[in-house]
Amino acid sequence: MQKTTNPTMKDVAKQAGVALGTVSKVINNQSVGEEYRIKVEDAIKVLDYKVNTYARGLKTQKTYTVAMIIPDITNPFFAALAHHTELYLYEKGYKLLLCCSQGKCDKELFYINMVSLNKVDGIIALTYSDISAHVSSDLPFISIDRHFNNSIHCVASDNYNGGFIATQKLIEAGCKHPVFVRTGSVIYGETNKRKYGYLDACSKNNIEPLLLELIDSDDDTIRCFEEFLKKTRTEDGKIGIDGIFAVTDLVGYEIIQYLHSINVRVPEDIQVVGYDGIRHFGCLDFYLSTIYQPIDLIAQACVNILLSPDHTEYANPYLLPVEYRYGKTTIL
Amino acid sequence: MQKTTNPTMKDVAKQAGVALGTVSKVINNQSVGEEYRIKVEDAIKVLDYKVNTYARGLKTQKTYTVAMIIPDITNPFFAALAHHTELYLYEKGYKLLLCCSQGKCDKELFYINMVSLNKVDGIIALTYSDISAHVSSDLPFISIDRHFNNSIHCVASDNYNGGFIATQKLIEAGCKHPVFVRTGSVIYGETNKRKYGYLDACSKNNIEPLLLELIDSDDDTIRCFEEFLKKTRTEDGKIGIDGIFAVTDLVGYEIIQYLHSINVRVPEDIQVVGYDGIRHFGCLDFYLSTIYQPIDLIAQACVNILLSPDHTEYANPYLLPVEYRYGKTTIL
Repeated sequence: MQKTTNPTMKDVAKQAGVALGTVSKVINNQSVGEEYRIKVEDAIKVLDYKVNTYARGLKTQKTYTVAMIIPDITNPFFAALAHHTELYLYEKGYKLLLCCSQGKCDKELFYINMVSLNKVDGIIALTYSDISAHVSSDLPFISIDRHFNNSIHCVASDNYNGGFIATQKLIEAGCKHPVFVRTGSVIYGETNKRKYGYLDACSKNNIEPLLLELIDSDDDTIRCFEEFLKKTRTEDGKIGIDGIFAVTDLVGYEIIQYLHSINVRVPEDIQVVGYDGIRHFGCLDFYLSTIYQPIDLIAQACVNILLSPDHTEYANPYLLPVEYRYGKTTIL
Repeated sequence: MQKTTNPTMKDVAKQAGVALGTVSKVINNQSVGEEYRIKVEDAIKVLDYKVNTYARGLKTQKTYTVAMIIPDITNPFFAALAHHTELYLYEKGYKLLLCCSQGKCDKELFYINMVSLNKVDGIIALTYSDISAHVSSDLPFISIDRHFNNSIHCVASDNYNGGFIATQKLIEAGCKHPVFVRTGSVIYGETNKRKYGYLDACSKNNIEPLLLELIDSDDDTIRCFEEFLKKTRTEDGKIGIDGIFAVTDLVGYEIIQYLHSINVRVPEDIQVVGYDGIRHFGCLDFYLSTIYQPIDLIAQACVNILLSPDHTEYANPYLLPVEYRYGKTTIL
């Protein structure tokens, strides 16, 4: 067949020797035998056929694109979230538009606005910005960790149990004075429950809770920890704590670096458990003993709920189970 | 003004009390005073005006979207690349479609094909897959590190000088037997020049080069390094090398972990320099002494060349300067 000026889908089907429906499936990324896919793709090439994306868009009103808003993809936890979300969206025939918001409200709103402009089908967001007023109940929006309103689904790990397990593990490993070190935002989210898990595990074991909370603080985490540590010292100069549950692996790592710098040994003098399950270079050993979040399952849940025709089938918040992982900064 | 069934851009302009051109600018993400932007956005909201994206697409043939193909965003180097590319694209009014290819040819081709389907305006890719046949000279495609053909622009750091500086630094720090450890692909790319930099620095200093090259090898890097190290031992059992230039920070980190496990001290017994400039958690201290790639400038160059109406104004390959950064695994 010769090239025509404006080849149609019918021309492609004829050239490929397949049914029109097969061409449509290939163009719409639906499941079709590999042999047919190759035939259709070859025909598209030979005829230089251009899909009329825009006309198609007008009909279906779907872009098969989802925007993901995360604060900073150089943070390995967010990178892993984007990674699994992209892989799972692709499996479902969707693409991921990446928004590295750096917590900037206007940038987040730009992407949220794309839904009403029909430029994306929905949003998966991890944000602590002041955007509540713009997240309406009819917006296809899945929130990770943070609560907006009852009709917006929130997906998170089981933070209460994570906090409980971390603290229980420190106590089982012999800690009498485990402290919970928390940094974060005043905005209420699922991660706040790490504290309740910590408090309940202390209570269950008749241990007095010790909290260092740095909420929306401009102070340097390590400087605050340093002062806190000084106050715990006994009259003979001994440090008054023997365990730390750090709200994230990042905070745990910073504290461990500081402890090393003042010649406090980890785990011999102080045991440390983090939260997230970050690995060196994304794929090697754990940074520290940690509560591992199933990032792949969190990503899958976000995609499934977003693309579901009926969100109400899913619990809200939708929580995924966590596991303790040993990473050399505890004795167990 | 009351809501009309199908409000037009003219209705928006009237409601906002601005010129039609101002509405167009806001919708097309062009520069416009903040006061006007707010007026237009409010009017769009009040009227529930929907931009006819697809019809607009047919006219301008631009999607203001660029696809970025990287193997794996959980690798912190690739995460930093995506981060800076997204930020810079956004500054230019463009969005980033993320493709985590995992080296899968068909997935990369799916995104490349989006250009001819008018679904993205261009591609920025870091890939080692066998896709040369599909990267034609008229494709708006920027390649990071890898050469395709003369008309496809390649952006990279100055790998030759990076290799030279790393080796020179080891020699200045007293190394008499620095080895270059390389893993990688057979596909020729800019990163191959790290070896030439190493060889020339050895030659300049009258030092015999020592190479451990694991190209497209299924063997475990550390197992190969272990065997290599054994062979260097002198008759009295001493290790025959005193410096390592590792082709990436990742390889350097793995080697350092192995050296610690056999009680070889870094930097006292063996000094190590990596390449990339990766930081813990993306923002803290360097993993090791390293050749720092200016990832922000690499990302900017990719975007600038891709969006430039005349690529030929830019050198090809377009190389960005590197710097040595001390990270505790060398004595200098």
